[in-house]
Amino acid sequence: MATTSADQIFKEFREHSAAQFFKKNRQMLGYSGQGRSLVTIVHEFCTNSLDAAEEAGILPDIDITIKRIDNGTGISRYSIRVGDNGPGVPKSFVGKALGTIFAGTKFHRYMQQRGQQGIGAAGCVLFAQITTGKPIFIKSSTGKGAAYSCRLGINAATNKPVITEMRDLDEDFRGLVIEGEYADIRYEAGEHSAYEYIRRTALSNPHAQIKLTDPGGQESLFVRSVKELPRKASVAKPHPAGLSANDILEFAHASQSRKISTFMIDTFARTTQNKISELKAVDGTIDVDKDPKQMTWEDAEKLIGAIHKVRWIAPDASSVIPIGEAQIKVALKNILDPEHMSVTERRPAVFRGGIPFVVEAAVSYGGNSGRKVEGGYAGNVLRFANRVPLLFDTASCAISKAANDIEWRRYNIDMDTQPVSVFVNVSSVYVPYSGVGKEAIAQEDEIIDEIKLAIMEAARGVQHYVRGKEQVAFNINRYKAIARYVKQLSGDISDLTKADRARIEKRLESIVSKRFPKSEEREREKGQEEER
Amino acid sequence: MATTSADQIFKEFREHSAAQFFKKNRQMLGYSGQGRSLVTIVHEFCTNSLDAAEEAGILPDIDITIKRIDNGTGISRYSIRVGDNGPGVPKSFVGKALGTIFAGTKFHRYMQQRGQQGIGAAGCVLFAQITTGKPIFIKSSTGKGAAYSCRLGINAATNKPVITEMRDLDEDFRGLVIEGEYADIRYEAGEHSAYEYIRRTALSNPHAQIKLTDPGGQESLFVRSVKELPRKASVAKPHPAGLSANDILEFAHASQSRKISTFMIDTFARTTQNKISELKAVDGTIDVDKDPKQMTWEDAEKLIGAIHKVRWIAPDASSVIPIGEAQIKVALKNILDPEHMSVTERRPAVFRGGIPFVVEAAVSYGGNSGRKVEGGYAGNVLRFANRVPLLFDTASCAISKAANDIEWRRYNIDMDTQPVSVFVNVSSVYVPYSGVGKEAIAQEDEIIDEIKLAIMEAARGVQHYVRGKEQVAFNINRYKAIARYVKQLSGDISDLTKADRARIEKRLESIVSKRFPKSEEREREKGQEEER
Repeated sequence: MATTSADQIFKEFREHSAAQFFKKNRQMLGYSGQGRSLVTIVHEFCTNSLDAAEEAGILPDIDITIKRIDNGTGISRYSIRVGDNGPGVPKSFVGKALGTIFAGTKFHRYMQQRGQQGIGAAGCVLFAQITTGKPIFIKSSTGKGAAYSCRLGINAATNKPVITEMRDLDEDFRGLVIEGEYADIRYEAGEHSAYEYIRRTALSNPHAQIKLTDPGGQESLFVRSVKELPRKASVAKPHPAGLSANDILEFAHASQSRKISTFMIDTFARTTQNKISELKAVDGTIDVDKDPKQMTWEDAEKLIGAIHKVRWIAPDASSVIPIGEAQIKVALKNILDPEHMSVTERRPAVFRGGIPFVVEAAVSYGGNSGRKVEGGYAGNVLRFANRVPLLFDTASCAISKAANDIEWRRYNIDMDTQPVSVFVNVSSVYVPYSGVGKEAIAQEDEIIDEIKLAIMEAARGVQHYVRGKEQVAFNINRYKAIARYVKQLSGDISDLTKADRARIEKRLESIVSKRFPKSEEREREKGQEEER
Repeated sequence: MATTSADQIFKEFREHSAAQFFKKNRQMLGYSGQGRSLVTIVHEFCTNSLDAAEEAGILPDIDITIKRIDNGTGISRYSIRVGDNGPGVPKSFVGKALGTIFAGTKFHRYMQQRGQQGIGAAGCVLFAQITTGKPIFIKSSTGKGAAYSCRLGINAATNKPVITEMRDLDEDFRGLVIEGEYADIRYEAGEHSAYEYIRRTALSNPHAQIKLTDPGGQESLFVRSVKELPRKASVAKPHPAGLSANDILEFAHASQSRKISTFMIDTFARTTQNKISELKAVDGTIDVDKDPKQMTWEDAEKLIGAIHKVRWIAPDASSVIPIGEAQIKVALKNILDPEHMSVTERRPAVFRGGIPFVVEAAVSYGGNSGRKVEGGYAGNVLRFANRVPLLFDTASCAISKAANDIEWRRYNIDMDTQPVSVFVNVSSVYVPYSGVGKEAIAQEDEIIDEIKLAIMEAARGVQHYVRGKEQVAFNINRYKAIARYVKQLSGDISDLTKADRARIEKRLESIVSKRFPKSEEREREKGQEEER
């Protein structure tokens, strides 16, 4: 057997960049399937616009135009333009912000925002480049009354931006416009369309105004239904109960404090001088006067051990910004216009020991709730994380899992036949997404449990309404079905037993009407009405 | 309203490394849940060992030992040691190979291997460091009769390896041993256990010998059942029909050829001088004498346009290495020992225009097929990609989708009650995984269709056996159920009609026994046997 040595094999050793990796595995960023790829682009830029406007304290106005381009090659292309009224991107950062994977203002800050990774926008630039070879066009205000425009590509081998045609503009403009040309995407209708994505974005962001112009020239305007901005996101301190030894060490080594005690009080939530004393009381070998820069893994583990033996106040949830019951109601009314709805906001909960999160849920019935299917309606689940609609990877999401686990019958709800929408928004400084494309929330038990409780609370709120609504229809249908069966059965029994058919039928009918007295009456009344 | 300027916001701008990204989002690499995290570690090192042994032309021997460590803190830890008899890692590459994310021998080579990303092993090192602060221990032969050992960590901020305690060893050793200490993992039993992972690895790699020692000291040896190595993977040339303009451009700009014509013939599969002439005939403006380094996007697009108008021979599938029908049979016999099985290997197919892949499927009945559930058995689906078992993310996998779409009744199979295993292996130079953790194959239509056809073929092969087996039991059960109903019904009819109960019962019985003549006899015989 001819063997090959390690040296020969390792001649092929190479390092590659994050951009190369995602270029080869673009499906991991959401670029799988032409319909989904288009939604991914709209999603990334829309998300960035909303984050930027809110951070700058501006009520967001977003304008999206999707056009089909026929360049004669037979391969269809689209141009997607997303414009906002946000603060723009400073000229010196535009390359890194939009043309470098793993770079941004959000990754390292412990703060609730839609984006958190520094991948999305650069991924779109990469995708434009792979599919059409064209850099994207950018026009931005710089915050000093000035503006510029440029074209931006990405060097996949080095994960560095390539900026061309940089021009200062002499015009009164505020905001950011990004326009790119893409192939291998398609504008589609339905549950997984850009239109649906925008509709759901409007639902979870009633303070935003969004206009979509589709490739057919059709304009859809989702008007702002509330005039207040969400509470501004603040940088949170991590809660001790959620820390690992590794976390403590990294914070300690980066600290400017001279003692572990002051370092901990400054850096972590709910950590006071009293708590430091408690930790020392639990483990006398902990040296809180040590220089945090000198902290060892063993020191950190000892601290973690003590932290887990002390009682802590739950993390401050002020860093978590839910949409709010009143705002959800306004948005649902505005967009779904249901006959009846019920909204719940759960109290803040905690996962992985120290990461606070809040679940909001709503169940709505009638109006534009649910989705139309052949012969009627079916229920649907509208999933959101930090107000961002999640349209794909349904099966692997904590929200889907929770919704599937609900015994809907207990609430008189039939998700297969009724016009019901279940709205769930999970808000947190850190949402544990299951993949880089951020289309599903990882199925962590603590999160699933909270979502279930929220949905159940909301479902209880519509239960009576739905029961009233459905009972009548249900009983009439059941009565009808059984009444049909009576005729058939009487005939069969009569054939078998030679007993009188009419007599059997009468007996059976009287049994049935004892069980469904009202239905029978209503049915007769209905019949009479129809006869009139 | 107080607004914040872009300059203020961008003060927070940072770049971060791939290691930092995956440290924060470890669930994306498969580190979500303690049970799954342990399997991920075993999986990464096992996969590397199998790839390395095969590339070196060595029949793999892998020895895995998982121990529980009690270090007195109450937080349980495990040590996981994976040893192999492969070529080892040259000293100069060990840091990059095991301590740098996005580096390796596999990413850029168009060649079928289990690993393809250069993330897995470095991810394990990172995980050990995050959870226990400890570098991993490595012992390796260097291919020159020498060996060394060292400890290896990873600097997350820079994504660079940290090597300590490097020692040359004076011993006769061949292979690679990696031993690490991990917390926040747990050894579990069941469908998603390390044992099941190894059992399935043995099933798809009958040429490997694998020993697992679990934390209880229990040894499981999966013996080698075939003595030949799989055909050696070769570097394939990309097929023109699967290329994008961007691909052609990148290849062209890296080419040493002086003309586009020779560049294409050298670089792409199925591309001959005749094909070049055909391309020119389709589009006269294509200049195949141009320097490939000067190729523009427009040139590349023109080429793609012409490529799609010309007929190509399907890609050479010799780069795809399926397990093989005979080997699958040996492995199934060895590990599942079924009463009956049927194995199919489909002919090579192509997805995304030019990437060849091969699907193999087997359906086995009885023995250790399926899984035990309360009160009997249920079917299971054993998913593999390039011989690697996929245990998680079931719902989002192309194999699960295909298996769910099968109308099992048509093959007399009931996946809810029968001891049936469905084995599917997808082999390709490039498997489109849905996530970085590589636990599911993206649901591309062309792949799903091939898997369905393979499963259906295999199912047809067991259909007759299962029918014979199940028909008897089924008819007897049905006969029994209906016979019970006869008694009840005769009583009710008699009550209603006052007709003679015995007479009604006799009439009904005669109707039933006309439909189930054999079952009735068998049931009587059985009754008599029991009475004896």
